[in-house]
Amino acid sequence: MAMTMTQKILAAHAGLGSVQAGQLILADLDLVLGNDITSPVAIKEFAKLGKDSVFDNNKVTMVMDHFAPNKDIKAAEQCRMCRDFCGEKDITHFYDVGEMGIEHALLPEKGLVTAGNAVIGADSHTCTYGALGAFSTGVGSTDMACGMAVGKAWFKVPSAIKFVLTGKLRKYVSGKDVILHIIGKIGVDGALYKSMEFTGEGLSSLSMDDRLCIANMAIEAGAKNGIFEVDEKTLSYIREHGGAEPEIYSADPDAEYDEVINIDLSEIEPTVAFPHLPENAKTFSEIGDVKIDQVVIGSCTNGRIEDLRTAAEILRGRKVAKNVRVIVIPATQRIYLEAMEEGLLRTFIEAGAVVSTPTCGPCLGGYMGILAAGERAVTTTNRNFVGRMGHVDSEVYLASPATAAASALTGKITSPWEVMEK
Amino acid sequence: MAMTMTQKILAAHAGLGSVQAGQLILADLDLVLGNDITSPVAIKEFAKLGKDSVFDNNKVTMVMDHFAPNKDIKAAEQCRMCRDFCGEKDITHFYDVGEMGIEHALLPEKGLVTAGNAVIGADSHTCTYGALGAFSTGVGSTDMACGMAVGKAWFKVPSAIKFVLTGKLRKYVSGKDVILHIIGKIGVDGALYKSMEFTGEGLSSLSMDDRLCIANMAIEAGAKNGIFEVDEKTLSYIREHGGAEPEIYSADPDAEYDEVINIDLSEIEPTVAFPHLPENAKTFSEIGDVKIDQVVIGSCTNGRIEDLRTAAEILRGRKVAKNVRVIVIPATQRIYLEAMEEGLLRTFIEAGAVVSTPTCGPCLGGYMGILAAGERAVTTTNRNFVGRMGHVDSEVYLASPATAAASALTGKITSPWEVMEK
Repeated sequence: MAMTMTQKILAAHAGLGSVQAGQLILADLDLVLGNDITSPVAIKEFAKLGKDSVFDNNKVTMVMDHFAPNKDIKAAEQCRMCRDFCGEKDITHFYDVGEMGIEHALLPEKGLVTAGNAVIGADSHTCTYGALGAFSTGVGSTDMACGMAVGKAWFKVPSAIKFVLTGKLRKYVSGKDVILHIIGKIGVDGALYKSMEFTGEGLSSLSMDDRLCIANMAIEAGAKNGIFEVDEKTLSYIREHGGAEPEIYSADPDAEYDEVINIDLSEIEPTVAFPHLPENAKTFSEIGDVKIDQVVIGSCTNGRIEDLRTAAEILRGRKVAKNVRVIVIPATQRIYLEAMEEGLLRTFIEAGAVVSTPTCGPCLGGYMGILAAGERAVTTTNRNFVGRMGHVDSEVYLASPATAAASALTGKITSPWEVMEK
Repeated sequence: MAMTMTQKILAAHAGLGSVQAGQLILADLDLVLGNDITSPVAIKEFAKLGKDSVFDNNKVTMVMDHFAPNKDIKAAEQCRMCRDFCGEKDITHFYDVGEMGIEHALLPEKGLVTAGNAVIGADSHTCTYGALGAFSTGVGSTDMACGMAVGKAWFKVPSAIKFVLTGKLRKYVSGKDVILHIIGKIGVDGALYKSMEFTGEGLSSLSMDDRLCIANMAIEAGAKNGIFEVDEKTLSYIREHGGAEPEIYSADPDAEYDEVINIDLSEIEPTVAFPHLPENAKTFSEIGDVKIDQVVIGSCTNGRIEDLRTAAEILRGRKVAKNVRVIVIPATQRIYLEAMEEGLLRTFIEAGAVVSTPTCGPCLGGYMGILAAGERAVTTTNRNFVGRMGHVDSEVYLASPATAAASALTGKITSPWEVMEK
């Protein structure tokens, strides 16, 4: 039976010749991930299973990123529980303050995911690793606990939507604009429990950072996973980051898709998702004067080196608008160092931004830039739900690093095309 | 009548020929300071006074540093109240995210305090500016409100203890060791409502960063203020930072002091204040194996460039101990940039530390490194009271940047003399 990319990976991990949409399978896992918020719950569940050890101490990873460095006593206690557990179970890939980064930027960088893997993570944006040609999806803490114990998880095999990419993005348009455009088109439940599979000749022009950003937000369309066809860029990324030998699964030519959507990348414009849903996507012809109070450039969606390069290009030699707080958060220690070496951090600070140590912080209303009532932020993060970055009466506008940087300069939501030459 | 340094400044600001200890005076103020925690209270009090404007919009300053970038919604609301007030009252020196730093590092750096000034701040460590030969002291928010309104404050003229410094500090011993040694000697109420006046031929060997650190912690001995005799170093510091014309007040040769304490700087050893009081000072002959979980290098006490240079010298080319979180917090954006240019930030990150944007954060249990129950931190901050950095069952050990860095390497409280050549 003809299968999609995702179905092929799942079939292989379930030891089955083929699977079809809707089928329940038990699949082997290559990696089980948790963070400082979700792992403590999973650790408590794990304890009930009466197992001394995890299924493979190299295939479980915990990343302290949401409220670390510890925001408060509760965060400190949660990180300590993870630290103690990983110590006891001899878990190799425990990432604490100092080695850390935001999980979905860190794992690909550390080579912990490769093409063809099946990965679960107790974090909704675990779908990020689809950029590497892996099947990866967010699960609850109980699934994480069982995954740690037995290295397996139950899945209902998803059907899929195929996105056929053509053309090439214009300057200052990036993966973020693509995914906001798509979610604007199909809605936040447009891919509910489906795979979003990205293919087409336009793919080759997308950088790995673009693809990671797009896959990251698949969940914002309700998708089970987002996944990119593996190409030379994927393989060299995996090679450079010391990832394991990739296994390449391509969709069968006659695989069934619920829908095929063609996206001409050259037509995508800078796009902003207005409050309070990622599907409220607008381009600048529809955007008037929207005054802002804060800009955040970072997160598992857009805290990678290319994101920072683009933001720095726009901020270089300029000053952020008065009364706008601009917070830049490199996603990992390695990205931080790279950005420092390239002079990007200097650019940010000279422009009047602050540079935070890697953390999820403001994205989920954790810390490092929480909004007061009535305040508005333009941010490169992934969710703009009510109260996501602070007070229920604050507003979050999702945008690309280029749009965020342009907005930082003017104090209102601004297209990068307005401040830079196209 | 013979007067101390402090008394001379107070007499001049009260328009009196002379003052004596115990006398109540009304003094003109050169600067009134508040931060994001204390200013909102002062702003509410100010509103009750029915005044449209502050006494001088160049002589009031507010610095968003304690819980900024906003830790939570409350912090966001507090910062917004300060921002709105400073906007309405056209206050020149409002320091928000991006221009900010920790207040007591920022104000001297910005040239806002000069020798001979009288300064109040709604923050206990306002005594820092005594390093510049100013009278400066912490006040409550109500005093701040009145200070903003009329530019004056009531003081009871303090008596004083004279500290006569001789000799020169040994390598990896700094101002922090001096002040911990002194507080260990006289106790946390050893200078209650008194001036601590620093003089003697040993003074010239102390850097401005050493002096700022020593004056900063005068309050930890209960002092009304700490103050240093002005010398060439003070004057060139003020000149370099664009401070106003200094007015130099020297103590009369026959000024009365409650006590004269001689300190031979060459005898000071690396010193650590054990929980839960700064007076619990020990040197390494009295310190056994004390395992630690976290190291913080930063704060208004020790987040200056020399502090970071010393820490980096010790961490360079080495790795922090496993299971120790090391958090470095440059005190201001300028110090951050300097430390970046000098390669210090790279050193920290390569050693396995994280670098935070300037904030008071963990020092007062705010965020960015809060301790869980049972955890211990060696920190360059100024207070080790019960629960100061997190859980009531956590412990804070105060030390110099050199000792903090040495401890980061070993995972236990360690003298810099143990890891470096004296």
